[in-house]
Amino acid sequence: MKRVYDRVALIGLGLIASSMFHAMKRAGLAGEVVGYAKTRETRDVARDIGLCDRICETATEAVEDADLTVLCVPVGAMGKVAAEIGPALKRGSTLSDVGSVKQSVIEEVSPHLPDGVHFVPAHPLAGTEHSGPRSGFAELFQGRYTLIVPRENCDREAVERIKELWRGIGATTEEMDAAHHDLTLAVTSHAPHLIAYTMVGVADDIRRLTSNEVIKYSAAGFRDFTRIAASDPTMWRDVFLDNREATLEILGRFTEELFALQRAIRTGNGEMLHAYFSRTRKIRRGIIEAGQDTDAPDFGRAKKD
Amino acid sequence: MKRVYDRVALIGLGLIASSMFHAMKRAGLAGEVVGYAKTRETRDVARDIGLCDRICETATEAVEDADLTVLCVPVGAMGKVAAEIGPALKRGSTLSDVGSVKQSVIEEVSPHLPDGVHFVPAHPLAGTEHSGPRSGFAELFQGRYTLIVPRENCDREAVERIKELWRGIGATTEEMDAAHHDLTLAVTSHAPHLIAYTMVGVADDIRRLTSNEVIKYSAAGFRDFTRIAASDPTMWRDVFLDNREATLEILGRFTEELFALQRAIRTGNGEMLHAYFSRTRKIRRGIIEAGQDTDAPDFGRAKKD
Repeated sequence: MKRVYDRVALIGLGLIASSMFHAMKRAGLAGEVVGYAKTRETRDVARDIGLCDRICETATEAVEDADLTVLCVPVGAMGKVAAEIGPALKRGSTLSDVGSVKQSVIEEVSPHLPDGVHFVPAHPLAGTEHSGPRSGFAELFQGRYTLIVPRENCDREAVERIKELWRGIGATTEEMDAAHHDLTLAVTSHAPHLIAYTMVGVADDIRRLTSNEVIKYSAAGFRDFTRIAASDPTMWRDVFLDNREATLEILGRFTEELFALQRAIRTGNGEMLHAYFSRTRKIRRGIIEAGQDTDAPDFGRAKKD
Repeated sequence: MKRVYDRVALIGLGLIASSMFHAMKRAGLAGEVVGYAKTRETRDVARDIGLCDRICETATEAVEDADLTVLCVPVGAMGKVAAEIGPALKRGSTLSDVGSVKQSVIEEVSPHLPDGVHFVPAHPLAGTEHSGPRSGFAELFQGRYTLIVPRENCDREAVERIKELWRGIGATTEEMDAAHHDLTLAVTSHAPHLIAYTMVGVADDIRRLTSNEVIKYSAAGFRDFTRIAASDPTMWRDVFLDNREATLEILGRFTEELFALQRAIRTGNGEMLHAYFSRTRKIRRGIIEAGQDTDAPDFGRAKKD
């Protein structure tokens, strides 16, 4: 595949950045990939495992002469990092990010953009419950969507170029405006994560059950929740605080609906429950058909044991 | 492996029964396995695919001379089926079930037991989102727990024998009393299922998102919820109605906790959120260590694409 950027700087070296590195290198899409992480420990690990062609001691050094800089830090840290690297960004280069929230990131990063730098926010809808520099792998974005959230009057060439990069590492790209992005993700990701965190917390709290029982008898359902609730705490704290309004709106709808189902259980309204559960089954079918999940029973987990 | 029962009757031919059939046959634990399902369609499919050695046209016929009869029907149907087959059960034989709720099943089945039949309720903690006679496979119970819920003054020999069967098809058995079983499952399975059903229903209902968007952008989190919410509607309606009190109790705790987290989001209490998410991460680690799930990222789904 043809090279899309001569030099790429990755700021923050967690799951997404390390996966981007492996994927870009494998596909030959980037010349030199330079990396920076806030902690010495992460930088040392990155050097140890050959993550990035070069690891810098400061973010400013890492972005020097980069054609593309990607902010891969928790959304709450984006503004601070942008303030730091802003003056060092190359004229004509592109700044992007991979944050799960877009309105707040745009608000916080934009003031620090020097003239002639193209800011193209993006969000790859891909992840696992693992985090850190060792967790990345080249296939993470394969078959997943990356949402591109161009700002008004943006440079179309810069937008097309970053789309080319994402498509080159396996993703399908789509454009979306920031507010709609944040609402969509509140529904498909943020609210479900908070719910999973809550349920796992409740289970840990029921004193009539030992935590050993919760763990041993974690049937399908709860077991899947625990995987979701094992995701990076810092990343998710920032997501909820930064996508506050949309998340709270969806959670409000959720509790309203949950109360209706609780009432159906209390009053023995089996018909309502059956109709509800039949409707949700159809949505699953749509996701399988759209190629966004496997139809293997129990995620293919059951057969592998 | 040595034969545990000469003749086994499976009443209801869904995921659990068909998996039991394949597993018992493969391990040589049962002589003849006879099956019955309520609908002609299911009986025809079963005959077509060689599920059971013999499929009968009535439940009464199926249990005739069986050494073990297993009720594999939704928990709401257990009492009715027990009333029907009760008079036909062989003296000295064992009646068991695989229902996800135990107190209500015991209450509903017990009155129909003839003298000399040993009732040993059981619950294999295994399943996938698929259902029906074609969904079974021999490995379903491998490495999973089957909870045995013996009644007071039960025949210990009958209990040990059914444990031998479950262990023979790969499960670990543990004894538990019915009330504790129902509370445990409300936490680890029933409440999580209702929550997942609710969240998927809400997503389908947000009018500013098209259902196509919900499906396409179903990131980790929601995607896992849809799998849970694709489980058999009849089975789950019955579970919630039959384990009403424990499920409602846990859901009450859940909403209380969810409100606390919502409040932390609204007030910007990042410390509380971070501490909460760090605690839930530990529980996941326990489940991996107990061998009840795989540590492959994203259930091993991400790498397979």
